[in-house]
Amino acid sequence: MRVLGVDPGLTRCGLGVVDGLPSRRAALVAVGVARSDPALDIDQRLLAIESQIEEWLEAYAPDTVAVERVFAQHNVSTVMGTAQVAGIAMVAAARRRIPVALHTPSEVKAAVTGTGRADKLQVQTMVARLLSLDALPKPADAADALALAICHLWRPAGALGAPQRAPGSMTAAQRAWAAAEQAARTRG
Amino acid sequence: MRVLGVDPGLTRCGLGVVDGLPSRRAALVAVGVARSDPALDIDQRLLAIESQIEEWLEAYAPDTVAVERVFAQHNVSTVMGTAQVAGIAMVAAARRRIPVALHTPSEVKAAVTGTGRADKLQVQTMVARLLSLDALPKPADAADALALAICHLWRPAGALGAPQRAPGSMTAAQRAWAAAEQAARTRG
Repeated sequence: MRVLGVDPGLTRCGLGVVDGLPSRRAALVAVGVARSDPALDIDQRLLAIESQIEEWLEAYAPDTVAVERVFAQHNVSTVMGTAQVAGIAMVAAARRRIPVALHTPSEVKAAVTGTGRADKLQVQTMVARLLSLDALPKPADAADALALAICHLWRPAGALGAPQRAPGSMTAAQRAWAAAEQAARTRG
Repeated sequence: MRVLGVDPGLTRCGLGVVDGLPSRRAALVAVGVARSDPALDIDQRLLAIESQIEEWLEAYAPDTVAVERVFAQHNVSTVMGTAQVAGIAMVAAARRRIPVALHTPSEVKAAVTGTGRADKLQVQTMVARLLSLDALPKPADAADALALAICHLWRPAGALGAPQRAPGSMTAAQRAWAAAEQAARTRG
């Protein structure tokens, strides 16, 4: 199971590929940042980000793309560009029939640190630890993309992500996870 | 000069194609609405809207795509999907090297009704009048898409839309238009 995590952003879009291994271990495959030139018009910036995401999809052929769920309450000055990059990542995956999952920032933080309120450094530290890296992944956007991928790999099957329209048939473990998620979201 | 207006929306995305004619007259070419099924996952909905927008770009080969500029202050429950559809329309145009222009709702209203505070019916009425239609264009999303296209056709050359990074070299008429625009935006 290979997951591409996408931490959407117009100036810097974090990208991280992680392979799931038996016994819940995870291995780093690739990490980086797609960028666009702030001097360009928005359509050209979105096109630049799209083509970089498509290169990653081609190069790493993930089984799932995990995208951070963007909320309108976020930083108002950048949220539109962030939402648009998230949309473009989702469509790029959907065009290739790759399943898309959405995870909230607090779900992701809770998955890798145990708390939905962890700060950037805590997330970077845990991502490095969980993937047995020698140094902290940088920049923070790249660490967040890896955390997203780990979060998705570690979810109980079917419990998380966008395709969750029918939550009726969860197992006890999935219900516990969903409750923890919900709690993290409320706190976050 | 042919303009495709896009009034972005995830459930209904208004599309309107208008040809500019000499002496500022405008002619309807096509009008309609791209839809996506609310029961689908967001990535599939965005993909459905993208493929309908691409069909319109193929069928009508516009010279410019005019997209409504989405603000974070809009209806919070739908603004993320709206922003994502706007982003997808921009990228679909950019991929075909079609220039993209963004116009605010109040610019559009001011262009077709004289006031940035016009209501839906006023916009529909004026769009019908300006395009010599026998009936009001429906639904309102479709009328808004036509109004966007008309707004773009009527702008002073170079004065409006996304590619306005260098506003230093405007003519007097363009400055007047820009000031009116700014005023409409402030009021709106």
